[in-house]
Amino acid sequence: MFTIKWNGDSVTILDQRLLPMQEVYNTYRHFRDVADSIRNMETRGAPAIGIAAAMGIALAALTVASNEIENFKEEMNRICQIFAGTRPTAVNLFSAIGRMKKIIEKGNDISQIKQQLEKEALAVYQEDIEANKAIGRNGRTYLNDGDVVLTHCNAGALATGGYGTALGVIRAAIEEGKKIHVYACETRPYLQGARLTTWELSRDNIPVTLITDSMSGHFMRTGIIKKVIVGADRIAANGDVANKIGTYTHAVLAKENGIPFYVAAPVSTLDPDTKSGNDIPIEERSVDEVVFIRNEQIAPEGIFIRNPAFDVTPAKYITAIITEKGVVENPASSGIGKLIKS
Amino acid sequence: MFTIKWNGDSVTILDQRLLPMQEVYNTYRHFRDVADSIRNMETRGAPAIGIAAAMGIALAALTVASNEIENFKEEMNRICQIFAGTRPTAVNLFSAIGRMKKIIEKGNDISQIKQQLEKEALAVYQEDIEANKAIGRNGRTYLNDGDVVLTHCNAGALATGGYGTALGVIRAAIEEGKKIHVYACETRPYLQGARLTTWELSRDNIPVTLITDSMSGHFMRTGIIKKVIVGADRIAANGDVANKIGTYTHAVLAKENGIPFYVAAPVSTLDPDTKSGNDIPIEERSVDEVVFIRNEQIAPEGIFIRNPAFDVTPAKYITAIITEKGVVENPASSGIGKLIKS
Repeated sequence: MFTIKWNGDSVTILDQRLLPMQEVYNTYRHFRDVADSIRNMETRGAPAIGIAAAMGIALAALTVASNEIENFKEEMNRICQIFAGTRPTAVNLFSAIGRMKKIIEKGNDISQIKQQLEKEALAVYQEDIEANKAIGRNGRTYLNDGDVVLTHCNAGALATGGYGTALGVIRAAIEEGKKIHVYACETRPYLQGARLTTWELSRDNIPVTLITDSMSGHFMRTGIIKKVIVGADRIAANGDVANKIGTYTHAVLAKENGIPFYVAAPVSTLDPDTKSGNDIPIEERSVDEVVFIRNEQIAPEGIFIRNPAFDVTPAKYITAIITEKGVVENPASSGIGKLIKS
Repeated sequence: MFTIKWNGDSVTILDQRLLPMQEVYNTYRHFRDVADSIRNMETRGAPAIGIAAAMGIALAALTVASNEIENFKEEMNRICQIFAGTRPTAVNLFSAIGRMKKIIEKGNDISQIKQQLEKEALAVYQEDIEANKAIGRNGRTYLNDGDVVLTHCNAGALATGGYGTALGVIRAAIEEGKKIHVYACETRPYLQGARLTTWELSRDNIPVTLITDSMSGHFMRTGIIKKVIVGADRIAANGDVANKIGTYTHAVLAKENGIPFYVAAPVSTLDPDTKSGNDIPIEERSVDEVVFIRNEQIAPEGIFIRNPAFDVTPAKYITAIITEKGVVENPASSGIGKLIKS
């Protein structure tokens, strides 16, 4: 199993929309297919879409016909814009595109730029896996032997180059001999928890219990859940976190029940240019994601529907933000400055 | 449209499992079919299952063959037990059965008991509709013109004899000229909000927006939702409320965001014999309700799954309990004693 793979002249992507019933990999030779793959959530997860964009841009460079450097740069910048327009909330997408753009800007030889873009895309991928492992090492100390840990959405191998952020911390704790049982919220509307987290964890023989999003409070109040750990799509300068819709709810419930709430993410998720959570754009996706579950229509016609894909968890609800560069405990008092400088 | 109807020698029940795509009514001549209808959630909602049980017991009496009074009573008590075993959490079921049992105990003429049981079942039904209207009158003052009101599950006409408890308050506010917009949580796993509340409200031209359960916090934090109102399956002596799974979560979120949280229910939902929420039995239903949405399987095999159908909201989160006999504001300080005595 892998999330995404670079083949030299194509990109292979696991179609996460078909999981867990089918494990299908699609190989794309055109950058537009990779951009569509991000847009339509064939691949998803903040770090993974950063990797996909980097690989998509490297792929595009191979097919740009121009032999004139300024034309080439113009065309590549246009393609970077296409990737920037695929999804608005996760900042990893923009940081990966930023790295690719820097190479385009600085270069003065087309074939050299093409090689450097390929190298950079692979670096984005490789660094993400290494970052996940480091996040695991930095975070595992917060989980105790015997803990039942709630997670939301999928911040696992499927959301990253591999290993995972929130699930990476859980994997690292288990690797050092701790027994951890995961409660996975199904994560409506797109069901990343039900479809992806349960699939990924059970493949690794990590015990996982599926619950609906509406059950997390019940299992916190009744003392079952001991910790909460989630990923992030963007972390503002003040420590506010944008993550999958429903995250804020779990955070409030955790605080109310005296349960630690952790956010695990690579530093590419930190956005010092965004002052607070209020400044993070929240993607509103198609209402069909709410009304249709595959082919089943679950609501009548002629009603209003909302489908914000993310919400903002203010820093005050967060016990610690765990990154590969270190941990910020109580981000409400300190913000993320410590991690940005390092 | 109606939820349940007595036909003299049969009971007609709207099959709520097929809504909103199909509006199918089934007519049953045998009490066992009515009991199954409660068990398998063809009909649901605490007040409605009380009515269904009363009608089912009246129906059973018509078909009990015995001409010997003690045999008849024994057989009827056995049938009452069958209804008591259909669902464990809603106390209206047991209060309706209790009313029927009292008639059976006191009676000494079989044909007279049969007539009285029919009359009592119709009284349970009629009183419920009247109670809902009175709940509406007592509760509408808490909703303001222009309010966006969140509700969970379906505490509407479909959950009662008609009109509804939580939705009855909304209907009553609208009837006195207030503009109310309802946010309906879809209410996983059984989707009563998506399937029933949206259907029922849009038939009455009450504007309704469907959201997933995981979105309520987001729309509270961002100032959209102004009030929360839900029904109840059992209210303990200390004011703790058992209601559809997810209710506790909305209540915590409401408190955190300074939003009033109301519970609307008939006094048949009050259970002075249950000291606190900890003493309320919580039904755990089939895991298939979580894993299958109609014919679509949404999670892999070989994982654990939990499916508690209800949760407990401690009284401290409740702004007021609204009944047909009056309102208890701040039930955490006073309990429900005032309503029991009246």
